[in-house]
Amino acid sequence: MQVLNNLKWRYATKKFDADKKINDEQLSCLKEAIRLSPSSYGLQLYKVLIISDLEIKKQLQPLCWQQSQITDCSHLFIFCSYKNYNDNDVDEYIKLVTTEQGLEYTTLEGYGSFIKGKVSEKTPTEQTAWLERQPYLAVSNLIMACAEQQIDTCPMEGFTPEDINRFFQLDNKNLNAVVMVAVGYRSEDDTAQHRKKVRKAENDLFEIVGS
Amino acid sequence: MQVLNNLKWRYATKKFDADKKINDEQLSCLKEAIRLSPSSYGLQLYKVLIISDLEIKKQLQPLCWQQSQITDCSHLFIFCSYKNYNDNDVDEYIKLVTTEQGLEYTTLEGYGSFIKGKVSEKTPTEQTAWLERQPYLAVSNLIMACAEQQIDTCPMEGFTPEDINRFFQLDNKNLNAVVMVAVGYRSEDDTAQHRKKVRKAENDLFEIVGS
Repeated sequence: MQVLNNLKWRYATKKFDADKKINDEQLSCLKEAIRLSPSSYGLQLYKVLIISDLEIKKQLQPLCWQQSQITDCSHLFIFCSYKNYNDNDVDEYIKLVTTEQGLEYTTLEGYGSFIKGKVSEKTPTEQTAWLERQPYLAVSNLIMACAEQQIDTCPMEGFTPEDINRFFQLDNKNLNAVVMVAVGYRSEDDTAQHRKKVRKAENDLFEIVGS
Repeated sequence: MQVLNNLKWRYATKKFDADKKINDEQLSCLKEAIRLSPSSYGLQLYKVLIISDLEIKKQLQPLCWQQSQITDCSHLFIFCSYKNYNDNDVDEYIKLVTTEQGLEYTTLEGYGSFIKGKVSEKTPTEQTAWLERQPYLAVSNLIMACAEQQIDTCPMEGFTPEDINRFFQLDNKNLNAVVMVAVGYRSEDDTAQHRKKVRKAENDLFEIVGS
């Protein structure tokens, strides 16, 4: 099982080797793993900022609890969910699907109305929470795609979204930073790589219901 | 790239073959992929209910928009986040990590306090949203582990959490159903398997910032 091997191999890298960078071909693969990720109704209501520029990473570091991964990683992926949902997002989606699948727009117009109806049943708070959850599906696939290529990662929630939003003027773009992944190569002296991976026992995590 | 192949192979299965079931060995692998998934601070503040019992699945179906995947899948995984965070969750985590890594509890007590402090900075609404996001990392790994074994899946948010919570009396267990994954084998006549996978273009999903 390659998937289990990848999950066992990976760990949240605390110290990256600032001299080691991923190449363009690797970056393309990682972007494709994100792009192919599932999302609610397939809407993909998020954007991913990718930063390798050291000067920008240095400016971001104070907004991210001064963590060294920000500056030492090769590429920083910042996942930003749409701040507000708009029915127009569904129209755009239906347009994309029908074009790609060679269908008339009207074929899926009813499905679009169904999605709009369901989303409108959510309160604004529920809509935000729903939008913020979707990028996590892609985060996992990014981590998995990296592990397969023995590229290290550190998923990070340790930052103040408001600060990141202000820095990149994300508000104006209807975006909201929710989670980051630092991508690169571990430093040889990152002691975290030697720690035993700890997870809850199966019985504490799962409950088999019924027969 | 096996990861990209898995992502291309999979699709949200609309119709399962009710006669085909996954075996115990496959189920073990899938549980392990979930168990090894990363989560915020490593806390794993969720539980996963696994249901293969047809009678229970029949009772769940009306609570899940009558979708056929609920009854026809082999196993239904219901991901339930902790409803409320408690500092005790962190104490339990520190206890687990120190025991597993052969350390004194006091070695990581300060780290535990750090986590508690950070979580306490979140408003109750933010805490709930944060808790609800974590299982999505495991959902992706479950889907990936299935795809590797050519097992089909359908990630599902189409249900009323309150109904599911009531059905399983999850409130009493401080749990809240957030997302499901139906796992099994596609029906030969599921037309969804033949549709072209549609995703946003790279330029619409990514923004390279800086040089």
